[in-house]
Amino acid sequence: MSQSAKRIVLASRPEGEPKPGNFRLEEYPVPTPGEGQLLLRTIWLSLDPYMRGRMSDGPSYSAPVPIDGVMEGGTVAEVVASNNPGFAKGDIVLAHSGWQQYGLSDGKGLRKVDPKIAPISTAVGVLGMPGMTAYTGLLEIGKPKAGETVVVAAASGAVGSAVGQIAKIKGARAVGIAGGKDKCDYVKNELGFDDCLDHRDPDLKAKLKDACPKGIDVYFENVGGKVFDTVFPLLNPFARIPVCGLIADYNTIFGKDTPTPPWANSIMRAILVKRLTFRGFIVSDFAAMFPDFIRDMPQWLKEGKLKHKEFVTEGIESAPEAFMGLLKGANFGKQLVRVGPDKV
Amino acid sequence: MSQSAKRIVLASRPEGEPKPGNFRLEEYPVPTPGEGQLLLRTIWLSLDPYMRGRMSDGPSYSAPVPIDGVMEGGTVAEVVASNNPGFAKGDIVLAHSGWQQYGLSDGKGLRKVDPKIAPISTAVGVLGMPGMTAYTGLLEIGKPKAGETVVVAAASGAVGSAVGQIAKIKGARAVGIAGGKDKCDYVKNELGFDDCLDHRDPDLKAKLKDACPKGIDVYFENVGGKVFDTVFPLLNPFARIPVCGLIADYNTIFGKDTPTPPWANSIMRAILVKRLTFRGFIVSDFAAMFPDFIRDMPQWLKEGKLKHKEFVTEGIESAPEAFMGLLKGANFGKQLVRVGPDKV
Repeated sequence: MSQSAKRIVLASRPEGEPKPGNFRLEEYPVPTPGEGQLLLRTIWLSLDPYMRGRMSDGPSYSAPVPIDGVMEGGTVAEVVASNNPGFAKGDIVLAHSGWQQYGLSDGKGLRKVDPKIAPISTAVGVLGMPGMTAYTGLLEIGKPKAGETVVVAAASGAVGSAVGQIAKIKGARAVGIAGGKDKCDYVKNELGFDDCLDHRDPDLKAKLKDACPKGIDVYFENVGGKVFDTVFPLLNPFARIPVCGLIADYNTIFGKDTPTPPWANSIMRAILVKRLTFRGFIVSDFAAMFPDFIRDMPQWLKEGKLKHKEFVTEGIESAPEAFMGLLKGANFGKQLVRVGPDKV
Repeated sequence: MSQSAKRIVLASRPEGEPKPGNFRLEEYPVPTPGEGQLLLRTIWLSLDPYMRGRMSDGPSYSAPVPIDGVMEGGTVAEVVASNNPGFAKGDIVLAHSGWQQYGLSDGKGLRKVDPKIAPISTAVGVLGMPGMTAYTGLLEIGKPKAGETVVVAAASGAVGSAVGQIAKIKGARAVGIAGGKDKCDYVKNELGFDDCLDHRDPDLKAKLKDACPKGIDVYFENVGGKVFDTVFPLLNPFARIPVCGLIADYNTIFGKDTPTPPWANSIMRAILVKRLTFRGFIVSDFAAMFPDFIRDMPQWLKEGKLKHKEFVTEGIESAPEAFMGLLKGANFGKQLVRVGPDKV
């Protein structure tokens, strides 16, 4: 094939907030699969906050995207040509082929997606990495008991929405924090959280206290910043804090302007006196829980106990702006880029 | 009995470092046990860092000692009179009768001490609360694996010395931190730690790095302060940090002069990126592990795998000064006050 395709590469590393100039749209020839390889056509590209980390070259659990490298990302793709006996033309797979229309793979790490279980886009959403992040972090670290209070921010997002709904399934009180009235209404009325507060509300502190009359037993930490500052004094003895993201801090963490958090002088004392557990994780740490996850979550979806919402932009060209928006909470639901049609 | 006895009460709450004026020596009549009560004669009083917390009235896991109240503390005592069928005159018990020569008890929470297993003073030391703090926090939270590196401060003290020796028993590398050459020599040569560093050494940072060439997998946190600042950057991915004390910070925590720690802006990021676990605990959280503890520790003592050292001052009058010294590391081994003779 000598057809041309489009991709987004990292043009330069951002200082603080990513800017359009940190990305570059490129045309490139659709590659031809070699021996054992297959050619993937991207249908859905998932945009996730962790990608902000990959744009910087500080120490992290993963190598950064190199300058001029294709931006990293999970995708749902169609196998359009295969020299690999494990995959046939027409297979739909979960891949990590990045911000591009076509990519090569040797088949490693690919997982076939069964379109009969749920729409294929859910393989990068509620039935994929974000859903499993919520499931594993909440159940393995947070361990909510019936009657306890679970707080999660970005509550209308891919991870947060699942955290609160799973907390409800386990009999806990779920309190969300989200940006704006529409998202909060959705979280309460559609997702069934017990309450949801707007993080921009100047009275957030008092309102969170009211929403958690028995304190906070589990705080699923995926945002950091002011939300954590507000949650911190309300943590109960023996509270568990799974930490899987700090989206509000990514730009300052990777930038230079880092104000001292208000809990700096008391966090170790609180850990001691309240017997708190803070534990960082990424979803791959709990790979062994995948069979449980893939048993429970589709079942809960089917039973209507677990709802999800997608926020879709069109075309690979839209990815940088959509990603910059995601970091500011401009999305309402799981952020996806529709890179190509389901079938061609 | 109208005999008179001595006790130490809390005269006032300290600001920062406790001063002699915060304590008061009192005489009081030896009380007479009522129905169901027994009279305890203190033989050994244990002095432990947690008592600093009880002198202040900030929020904690326990109520503070009231002003003019007897200072709290674990004791090994003789039952000298008993109206309680569970205890006989002459029994030796582990009690929590405080900084006084005689006290009453209704028998609740007392545990009989068998002088045949080990010297009775060990019931407040290596076979008591400090030993169990080390055993439970290290094994239940720290979970050291063979070949991993465990770091503990106050390494010649009651808790630290047990932590490092249990780490060795489990096949880990044990690195201690202690105050001064004598303590470090003891920790290395007598207790068998792989290394021990002086926290006053201006090169502590570089030396700790050298002593932990593969980084730190478990940091048993019982001191806080500069030691934690130094340990923090060396923590490995998936490191576990049981937090049971912050002795170096007690005076600033409970005082007013609290400098911002150097890790304030990076601790949450480190928890996330390195997948760290911080968990606070007190020994009673792991009461269910007592049978394991009391099976393993006396056995290890007998086999010579577990050594301990006591640092004894004489007479209840010596308790305040001994306690103030303990907070500064003036003790060398488990701090005890010999309040009375074994048998009278």
